[in-house]
Amino acid sequence: MRAFSWALALSPVMSFAGVLASPAAAETVATAASPDGSITVSVDLDNDGRPSYAVMHKGKPLIAPSRLGFLLTDAPKLERNFTLASQATNAFDETWDQPWGERKTIRNRYNELKVALKEKTTLGRQISIVFRVHDDGFGFRYVFPQQDALKTANIAEELTEFNLAENGTAWWIPAGEWNRYEYLYNRTKVSEIGRAHTPVTMKLDSGTHVSFHEAALVDYSAMWLQHVEGVRFKATLSPSSGPAKVVRNGAFHTPWRSIQISDTAGGLVDSSLILNLNDPNVLGDVSWVKPYKYVGVWWGMHLDTESWASGAKHGATTANTKRYIDFAAKNGMRGVLVEGWNKGWDGDWFADGSTFSFTQPYPDFDIEGLSAYGLKKGVHLIGHHETSANVAHYEDQLEAALDLDRRLGIDSIKTGYVADAGGMKVRGADGVVRFEWHDGQASARHHLKVVTEAAKRRIAVNAHEPIKDTGLRRTYPNWVAREGARGMEYNAWGSPPNPPEHEINLVFTRMLAGPMDYTPGVLSLEGRGQPLQSTVARQLALYVLLYSPIQMAADLPENYAKVMKPFQFIKDVPTDWADSRVLNGEIGDYVTIARKDRNSADWYLGAGTDENGRTIDVTLDFLDAGKTYTAQIYRDADDTDYRTDTRHHHVIETRQVRRGDRLSLVLAPGGGQAIRFVAR
Amino acid sequence: MRAFSWALALSPVMSFAGVLASPAAAETVATAASPDGSITVSVDLDNDGRPSYAVMHKGKPLIAPSRLGFLLTDAPKLERNFTLASQATNAFDETWDQPWGERKTIRNRYNELKVALKEKTTLGRQISIVFRVHDDGFGFRYVFPQQDALKTANIAEELTEFNLAENGTAWWIPAGEWNRYEYLYNRTKVSEIGRAHTPVTMKLDSGTHVSFHEAALVDYSAMWLQHVEGVRFKATLSPSSGPAKVVRNGAFHTPWRSIQISDTAGGLVDSSLILNLNDPNVLGDVSWVKPYKYVGVWWGMHLDTESWASGAKHGATTANTKRYIDFAAKNGMRGVLVEGWNKGWDGDWFADGSTFSFTQPYPDFDIEGLSAYGLKKGVHLIGHHETSANVAHYEDQLEAALDLDRRLGIDSIKTGYVADAGGMKVRGADGVVRFEWHDGQASARHHLKVVTEAAKRRIAVNAHEPIKDTGLRRTYPNWVAREGARGMEYNAWGSPPNPPEHEINLVFTRMLAGPMDYTPGVLSLEGRGQPLQSTVARQLALYVLLYSPIQMAADLPENYAKVMKPFQFIKDVPTDWADSRVLNGEIGDYVTIARKDRNSADWYLGAGTDENGRTIDVTLDFLDAGKTYTAQIYRDADDTDYRTDTRHHHVIETRQVRRGDRLSLVLAPGGGQAIRFVAR
Repeated sequence: MRAFSWALALSPVMSFAGVLASPAAAETVATAASPDGSITVSVDLDNDGRPSYAVMHKGKPLIAPSRLGFLLTDAPKLERNFTLASQATNAFDETWDQPWGERKTIRNRYNELKVALKEKTTLGRQISIVFRVHDDGFGFRYVFPQQDALKTANIAEELTEFNLAENGTAWWIPAGEWNRYEYLYNRTKVSEIGRAHTPVTMKLDSGTHVSFHEAALVDYSAMWLQHVEGVRFKATLSPSSGPAKVVRNGAFHTPWRSIQISDTAGGLVDSSLILNLNDPNVLGDVSWVKPYKYVGVWWGMHLDTESWASGAKHGATTANTKRYIDFAAKNGMRGVLVEGWNKGWDGDWFADGSTFSFTQPYPDFDIEGLSAYGLKKGVHLIGHHETSANVAHYEDQLEAALDLDRRLGIDSIKTGYVADAGGMKVRGADGVVRFEWHDGQASARHHLKVVTEAAKRRIAVNAHEPIKDTGLRRTYPNWVAREGARGMEYNAWGSPPNPPEHEINLVFTRMLAGPMDYTPGVLSLEGRGQPLQSTVARQLALYVLLYSPIQMAADLPENYAKVMKPFQFIKDVPTDWADSRVLNGEIGDYVTIARKDRNSADWYLGAGTDENGRTIDVTLDFLDAGKTYTAQIYRDADDTDYRTDTRHHHVIETRQVRRGDRLSLVLAPGGGQAIRFVAR
Repeated sequence: MRAFSWALALSPVMSFAGVLASPAAAETVATAASPDGSITVSVDLDNDGRPSYAVMHKGKPLIAPSRLGFLLTDAPKLERNFTLASQATNAFDETWDQPWGERKTIRNRYNELKVALKEKTTLGRQISIVFRVHDDGFGFRYVFPQQDALKTANIAEELTEFNLAENGTAWWIPAGEWNRYEYLYNRTKVSEIGRAHTPVTMKLDSGTHVSFHEAALVDYSAMWLQHVEGVRFKATLSPSSGPAKVVRNGAFHTPWRSIQISDTAGGLVDSSLILNLNDPNVLGDVSWVKPYKYVGVWWGMHLDTESWASGAKHGATTANTKRYIDFAAKNGMRGVLVEGWNKGWDGDWFADGSTFSFTQPYPDFDIEGLSAYGLKKGVHLIGHHETSANVAHYEDQLEAALDLDRRLGIDSIKTGYVADAGGMKVRGADGVVRFEWHDGQASARHHLKVVTEAAKRRIAVNAHEPIKDTGLRRTYPNWVAREGARGMEYNAWGSPPNPPEHEINLVFTRMLAGPMDYTPGVLSLEGRGQPLQSTVARQLALYVLLYSPIQMAADLPENYAKVMKPFQFIKDVPTDWADSRVLNGEIGDYVTIARKDRNSADWYLGAGTDENGRTIDVTLDFLDAGKTYTAQIYRDADDTDYRTDTRHHHVIETRQVRRGDRLSLVLAPGGGQAIRFVAR
């Protein structure tokens, strides 16, 4: 046999004697470069009128020529016989402020290339491809103009290819496998990816780090990354219950297909590409969207000491909730989540979800009284809408439920779509309820409907078992957080629980998409008969490492009562930042992040490692010049190890430091470190 | 980071506290073993009622526990909450004769296990899984009984998994990529497969050879092998233009999911598993199905010296066809294929196919006169029905076209579906024409419609750009051959042309599915401005290596006139065999096959190699005892090399041999050897 040749892995051009030659020669018809010139995109048309794009990074090929186009269910595919109708380039540079976020001010600087194509055939259909080339990556999307030849686009599949120029290591979770994102990350060769959800993060053999994702997933199906062969990938759209995976009328555009590019792993995390590719805030004044910390009736269910269902173990009782409100008020937390408050948890809710009421509390839960009691103390109940993915049933009650929340001063809700009956039950335009994928077009529409209906009532949304985040928080700042990954609850009953590397992986994969409500802070380090794969100091570090504008203190109040000294960090740590910087890190190994409080001069640092203990030297060059800081250090003890009871061992100490000082962060196996730098 | 663990690659059980644990414990509820005990299959039900199967080979795990089930578009998935309703085992042993084939008599011996499952839920739906465990592999299929709870199965996806126990090397072509099968084979690690068409052939690290395929693809979508992660794969069904990939009413069963298992690569080729899993002949007397050799007006078009279209270069003229009929008659060939005989090739047929008439010849083609002229000489015209995949248009004319052929004594047709407009244009039950995949349910129905309509008229079918072969020739013996791989025409204009290893790969991959009309015998070794990657002796060997009951002598008569000595082998070689045996071979490297003529005592041998020259020692233990044979040897010369003009160098010599004698087959780089053993 012959050694395998990537050249042979290129997708064959449709070949038939006398019809066209193979492969077809191609001509570059348009190019664009990033402002700093490090990234260049070129668009080719071959002599069959097939468009393709290619990308160079720092003078080396990153993406080899890759196909573009669509399969349609009811018309010839949009893929060949195109001519260049026009091209236009545009340089853009702005800075914009996040109402809340990991940094206040973001620069959005790119060169845009718009390539308009028209079919030579009698059909004469038109599509445009718009590239935005930033210094930290690029995005492109298809734009469909209003046209008689394509009044409705019934998209069977997107033909977009990502034909990498080299192999490398990839961190990814499988798509099309199960209806959610709750996996530990695979670490394999790029050429060993099966079919992955995005973000898919890679460290290529040349050392360049890239992450494939999409931005602004609106009224479209999520893109999966399908491995074709070698290091060639193609977009595959999440399925639909209809003949077409996506149906759009008139003029529309697809989400942005994005590739973040960085020399370092940390550079991917510091990048704002996904946010920049999204549209600006359309909600106007969003000062009512409040970052906050919260506690809640939640961890007890996962420990199986309390229940969602009514009865002796019912967690959502008036008395129990009062206890959480008091604890929140005493410790400066704004929110109290109460799951199992509403009728419907006693039936086989998991199989269907039609049992749920989103307005009727269980008799032992005085929602009116508790809301008022909390508000007197500055504590807001957080609404909980578990739907079991019966979207049709939920949408029937959605407005009434949000009206109730609004009236009671409940200004944020946690939604849930935990189900596996075969998908989300969504009512179609014809009134028929069908199963849809968690990340298909119907789901994208539903999630945005909840967010916009909530916004009308000044309510924030934190979606669990959600569609993936694609940066829509910029456009809809009340979409404050989501789950969408293997979270803390797996440490209660998961087999296996989350290993130490999981949270490090999250920083470089899931977190590139946006805030995650991971619910850290289980300082007891105890699950349901199994310990957390963590140390106490690491639990604190997670508040800095895993960004979210809302952060839970997930443990039970009675557990926190035993460890009030380390709990102090959870009380202190903000959830809204003026700036964030990754100081160091390798995917799946370790990471250190520094963030500056948006409401004070204080800085915070979080560091975490995988199952290997290590010492990380950091220079405090992020601190403001001329200031002295008291570093309140929460670290692992010398004997701490996540594999033994020493996981509980921690040291709290203070040091006076200034900009430029060096610190050696000693992290235990499975450990971490959290530091508050109090400015004087 | 932690070393990647396959254990973590197991698909997560739907996990939610209090709902069920993860992973769920499983109990074996049924088992079956092959007659020789080498292969054992076990079926488990976990404590959530999820069925799975696992396979051991010679006491070692081959397939780890793998899921079973279906996603439906309009009902909860068939995947969990099952109980064992019943199980039954049955031992089967028969021998049956092929009307034509690579061997006359086939033994079909297996142990069958039928596992009937019923849902515990109120739905109470039932499915059965039937395993047939042979000594050379196994197959399983799902059986849906008639039931009120599932009157119509709208299958969104099949959840069948193939969770291999070890890695290895795989030979495969990508699926879902392009609407056909015409690729060079990838050779990668099993864990580097993307999404593959079957057959997918693997040599596992332990040395065991396996090939994944399916048998009896009837009224269902083709199964693609989707790489999930690690060495875990799942079935993915070819898409449909409808909401469901497959729609079936009442009682039905799926195709057999088959895995051939052998210690040697050759064992896969000698296996009759795919045929055995198919139903017996339903056509009754099929003595009218004639194996044959043929020539035709074809290669000239691929050389671009002739055209399908009318005009100066039109190949399908009365005079030119007469020339082929005379050549066929003179050289004992039964068939003459004439492409471009019918009206429609002058329009943009490639874009649509609605231009074709299947009954009206071009004015310069006297179909009536030529048919009669041929029949007088014992030569039959072969009908050609190129549809450009416009199935709706073809089906409108199908019966009239077949009636015409029948009337003219045209008793076999070559169909064609060469198109790339977005799929096959098929008219749905609602009368609307939609794009369907080349291997979806609609295509499976169309191909069988052509075969059965042809059978009514005693016409044989040779489908090009077809749906893949799944052994249906057993049930419909008039379905004599197909293309469905990268054939000889790529040597005319392909870039690259087929490298030597390609034909060796075909023997161990595509050919496992069934006969291929590869159209060998281009002794001129000249394509359109590029030489074939072959030697003369190799072209002869292909008639033995690539089995088909119909074989073309693909070169031009004027080319054969220059090399009548080697052409003698093409005149002699049969296309119907009493027996076939792979003497040796490694996938992609080399192979030697011996076949015995079904109509004489003669044996034939073919050997081929990749780009490396090699000497293969064979013992003639296949020859009949007590007989002396004159071995007519067609071999490469000492200086032959496919990369130079020496590719034309060949030696023809004879030797007297007997059973047990040894021969050293010296194969040139890219070369081969063909031997006829004439019994005395």
